[in-house]
Amino acid sequence: MYRERLTRLIQALKANRLDAVALNPGPSLFYLTGLTFHLMERPIVCLFTTDKPPLMILPELERPKAETSHLEIELITYGEDEAFRIRAFEDATIRLGLHDLCVGIEPLRLRVLELRLMESVAPQATFTSGERALSGLRIIKDETEISAIRRAVVIAEDALKATLPLIRLGMTERELAAELTMQLLRAGSQPEMPFSPIVASGPNSALPHATPTERALKPGDLLILDWGATADGYVSDITRTFAAGEIDAELVKIHSIVQQSNASGRDAIRPDNTAQDIDRASRTVIESAGYGQYFIHRTGHGIGLEAHEPPYIREGNTQSLTPGMTFTVEPGIYLPGRGGVRVEDDLLVTGTGGESISTYNREIEVIG
Amino acid sequence: MYRERLTRLIQALKANRLDAVALNPGPSLFYLTGLTFHLMERPIVCLFTTDKPPLMILPELERPKAETSHLEIELITYGEDEAFRIRAFEDATIRLGLHDLCVGIEPLRLRVLELRLMESVAPQATFTSGERALSGLRIIKDETEISAIRRAVVIAEDALKATLPLIRLGMTERELAAELTMQLLRAGSQPEMPFSPIVASGPNSALPHATPTERALKPGDLLILDWGATADGYVSDITRTFAAGEIDAELVKIHSIVQQSNASGRDAIRPDNTAQDIDRASRTVIESAGYGQYFIHRTGHGIGLEAHEPPYIREGNTQSLTPGMTFTVEPGIYLPGRGGVRVEDDLLVTGTGGESISTYNREIEVIG
Repeated sequence: MYRERLTRLIQALKANRLDAVALNPGPSLFYLTGLTFHLMERPIVCLFTTDKPPLMILPELERPKAETSHLEIELITYGEDEAFRIRAFEDATIRLGLHDLCVGIEPLRLRVLELRLMESVAPQATFTSGERALSGLRIIKDETEISAIRRAVVIAEDALKATLPLIRLGMTERELAAELTMQLLRAGSQPEMPFSPIVASGPNSALPHATPTERALKPGDLLILDWGATADGYVSDITRTFAAGEIDAELVKIHSIVQQSNASGRDAIRPDNTAQDIDRASRTVIESAGYGQYFIHRTGHGIGLEAHEPPYIREGNTQSLTPGMTFTVEPGIYLPGRGGVRVEDDLLVTGTGGESISTYNREIEVIG
Repeated sequence: MYRERLTRLIQALKANRLDAVALNPGPSLFYLTGLTFHLMERPIVCLFTTDKPPLMILPELERPKAETSHLEIELITYGEDEAFRIRAFEDATIRLGLHDLCVGIEPLRLRVLELRLMESVAPQATFTSGERALSGLRIIKDETEISAIRRAVVIAEDALKATLPLIRLGMTERELAAELTMQLLRAGSQPEMPFSPIVASGPNSALPHATPTERALKPGDLLILDWGATADGYVSDITRTFAAGEIDAELVKIHSIVQQSNASGRDAIRPDNTAQDIDRASRTVIESAGYGQYFIHRTGHGIGLEAHEPPYIREGNTQSLTPGMTFTVEPGIYLPGRGGVRVEDDLLVTGTGGESISTYNREIEVIG
């Protein structure tokens, strides 16, 4: 599998006129080698060229882990003294002949630390975005990847089912987030969660990226839970919105609109359509209902080794949907100071349409 | 508090001949503003100059969160269309007069994404490491910060005490890591852990940065647990090594040596000493015992809002210890293929010496 991915990477480099790609630890490196490292103060860079074996620069203490790679990689290690680092990068430049090459990087992942080190040893080289080559590699999921995402969805839904009976009025968002996280682990998620659960109640639910606070759940609140699990490195990302007791009629109404918008986005998925078509299918429902100005984000994003990755489901993205793509559909309406609703599912593009991998009830449930 | 931190930042900028500093989401931004954001595909940069109010460029959907900042910040937001981003950065450049300034950045945090955006709107500006200015700001912890670290240590030690009785021979490293993580949450850790617990048994314990595997705990194993909690954004980071039943005499011996090395490092802490002195005090014990070549990393690192931050406790770091600094002392001996031992504590430099905030038993305990 890893040999085949390397072959596809080399093809993608050639197709994108790149001589090499330089990756630091993260999902693309994991995809190509099976290796994970914490991203810390010691730089780690793996260089892939089109004609030589991959080469990784890393601290000596990470060598044993690097040797567990599923792909054959040459290792250049450095010791604790910072002076050794630059020598390791010089050595790599010489071995790969990087001096004047065009090297693809990941602007969302590579840090200035690694960029500057590479620029200093190869001042004539060009470091440019390799995103297109790399995301093309990872955007279509194979059967192994899809089944990992399915497991991550099952784990997340099991964790929700275990958490809901424990919710009480008066619980704080933080307490609820801790409980949901524990249930995710109990249900089998890897400890590296895709993100910390969002638990947003009452007016906080009007903030799409709210961080859990000490606010206690009150009757009349909307409650957004946005959570996900990790299985074999692959993630799920689901949102459901609940009502704490009886809620205002307009809040019931916006939940119903968002639910229709979610269904409309899901129904629009088929291999001919574009990412933009899905965004439009979802957005039209909310706009027609007069709440367009309160749907303040795109409709979704790809999921895989990352919780946010291509394809982005937004106006302007005319990329065609292809079987094996996996992404969220997550429309929302956010009424400032009052509350918000979001309903998010994880979708798979199939040969004929879209399959919602997440299936938990989308109707508004009353809790507490 | 935040006004005072801003004043100190401005002084540090002037002392380091920087006109400004550009931060993306992370610990320094949290320290200065109280704001946290997920680091995602939408760039967020906050610019601090010496003479104008701080200015943050961010996606429109993050505006409500940015408005909760403890510091007064001007906001420039952009919409979902990528073309709006560059305009937001241009706008910021004009407002702050960034065109030819010397701007400090964090090479370990800032991504190529944000660097390239800033370089494109201010091609005459210089972007250089602002690490010295920023780490100087955060390296001495005030009373509020120290009490948060104390809480993070208590949570971590409580979680360990709750986990140990549950450990059985045959449990896998992953199962144990999930249990320890659940106990961390139950004990009150914020869901954003400083790192996923390291659970390394048998030969895996010889890898300092091992990732938990499906290996089951066996009699005769050394078992390293390296874990930490988060309280109010501040972290703890502790390691203890256990014996699964009866272990080989040499493994008992290396545990005893590492324990002495840990004590020697802790005892060397006083305000006149340097970071290097602590490393030497720990390392000498292991070298004298003939295991120097198996202690393959530095003795420790600072802790605070990050699990690894200055001061780094290593040979060559002649930085003086100052009351209020907090860092780990974590010597180890790693025998490839057989097993490793590490004993790690969280230390505070006081007016007269060092206080070990973590106090859990350092003797080898038999478990399983």
